[in-house]
Amino acid sequence: MTADSGRRLVLPLPGNEAFAAQLAAAGGGELGRIETRRFPDGERYLRVHADPAGRAVDLVCTLSRPDEGFLTLVFAADAVRDLGAREVSLVAPYLAYMRQDRRFLPGECVSSLSFARLLSSTFDRLLTVDPHLHRHPALGALYAIPTATLHAAPLLADWIAAHVPSPLVIGPDEESEQWASAIAGRIGAPHAVLRKTRRGDRDVEIALPDLSAWRDRRPVLVDDIASSGRTLAAAAHGLAAQGLAQPACAVVHALFADDAWAQLQPLFSRIASTDAVPHPSNAIALAPLFAQALADGLEDPPAPAAGAA
Amino acid sequence: MTADSGRRLVLPLPGNEAFAAQLAAAGGGELGRIETRRFPDGERYLRVHADPAGRAVDLVCTLSRPDEGFLTLVFAADAVRDLGAREVSLVAPYLAYMRQDRRFLPGECVSSLSFARLLSSTFDRLLTVDPHLHRHPALGALYAIPTATLHAAPLLADWIAAHVPSPLVIGPDEESEQWASAIAGRIGAPHAVLRKTRRGDRDVEIALPDLSAWRDRRPVLVDDIASSGRTLAAAAHGLAAQGLAQPACAVVHALFADDAWAQLQPLFSRIASTDAVPHPSNAIALAPLFAQALADGLEDPPAPAAGAA
Repeated sequence: MTADSGRRLVLPLPGNEAFAAQLAAAGGGELGRIETRRFPDGERYLRVHADPAGRAVDLVCTLSRPDEGFLTLVFAADAVRDLGAREVSLVAPYLAYMRQDRRFLPGECVSSLSFARLLSSTFDRLLTVDPHLHRHPALGALYAIPTATLHAAPLLADWIAAHVPSPLVIGPDEESEQWASAIAGRIGAPHAVLRKTRRGDRDVEIALPDLSAWRDRRPVLVDDIASSGRTLAAAAHGLAAQGLAQPACAVVHALFADDAWAQLQPLFSRIASTDAVPHPSNAIALAPLFAQALADGLEDPPAPAAGAA
Repeated sequence: MTADSGRRLVLPLPGNEAFAAQLAAAGGGELGRIETRRFPDGERYLRVHADPAGRAVDLVCTLSRPDEGFLTLVFAADAVRDLGAREVSLVAPYLAYMRQDRRFLPGECVSSLSFARLLSSTFDRLLTVDPHLHRHPALGALYAIPTATLHAAPLLADWIAAHVPSPLVIGPDEESEQWASAIAGRIGAPHAVLRKTRRGDRDVEIALPDLSAWRDRRPVLVDDIASSGRTLAAAAHGLAAQGLAQPACAVVHALFADDAWAQLQPLFSRIASTDAVPHPSNAIALAPLFAQALADGLEDPPAPAAGAA
């Protein structure tokens, strides 16, 4: 046991240094360093520059590019465990592979379950924010380890209140009704939702309700993920067609695949995101939320039995 | 059970189609197909186009670029198992992460063990050829599943006999003495070994014994892996300095990192490799060796207890 053994040890995987530094600062943890490089044949070398013995360790790794960094993440977790860590938590502000959560066509892999199986065998605990849950009600239906699901909605609401005068909060689809309503309710704003029909990875059709009564308001689209950006672009065009003001946008996970960012920027007065995924649009810091959850030992309630409503 | 349930099902991961086709042909198996693509956010989609129900399935995936394809490999294995496969074997002609098999400096990960843990939790069996075993005597010291370690030495020997007149077989270091001796013995040729001192990933010093008595012979360097190519280059220069003929080279695993291939080609009369790693130097087909091992149900003997000599 070192003199620091009472403090959490925060270790960033490559690319997560800024988030980890904020997390350590917000939670009073010690910030350590992981050295990585590649051998000439492309294999990864990894070394932990900190002493995890007897301590709770938080590995910080957002999973927006899950394939290339996955083994590195596992090597780090196994190393700190092997070096005596008492508990190894994964702080993954963005959690990958939530999309393919069942077999839609014969022969498809269910990557949500495979990914959860590997992480569950590697970590003692998983913390993330607003995972893209569709058919499963909670992470516990996929993950065999304790999980903590954090929610960025209040932070999005506060950002809107501070930056968008007289807002109209708009959710991207009927599923988002409750979420958009909560954000709007927190700041005393009205809300509406769009109807979305998805025909493929990049093919989305949007139907807008009649919003012409809200022409004196500034529309703010809210979404959990901005990926291809098709939904947001279609919504912006629809709002313009109804004569509403140019919208703002607040999203949790700023993936912005391919040219989505370039396509979207001209359509919005401003696009803000949390720093769950590093991106130029980041305006909302999540580290304090994670630090609080770690301090409180936050855990999701047990998953309902399979088949329960 | 389908009409084909008695035949093995051979499925290539992307980039392993040629090897898998040869394996299916050599072993009388059925060749299936795995479809993969990327979602806009970079996540992998995977679908098996074959019916694995009730069958022994051989997933073919050489691991020369282990990081970027690792999750895809796990998704494929989990999918065929979930689709009812009776047994899922990994046919990995090149096995990655054999280098870092213990902690040399404080804090280092032992990637050999982490990688073996993940594969052992995913497959029922692993087949590979000439893994780069150093400090561990056998794969059983790392892997928790049955393994089959195949040996390419006889195929290298036969290639030398067919293509190099009057050969002198040369092993790259003292560790390779027995291996070089076996290759030479099979084809009635003399052999020698170099002395290698490794100072870093790319920094290698080679000492040659006096080989001037063999000036009437054609030197053939044999090695299990050609990675940075430094050993082979230093050896070729040393042989030239002693006035020997331009050497040939026969290796099992043609990694040829960075510019190694371009650097080495002028130094050798010919460089031949097995097709464990796809490369222009491939001249020795391994599929028949794997097909025979699968037909025979080949398994390595149990690993000696930890600490045994």
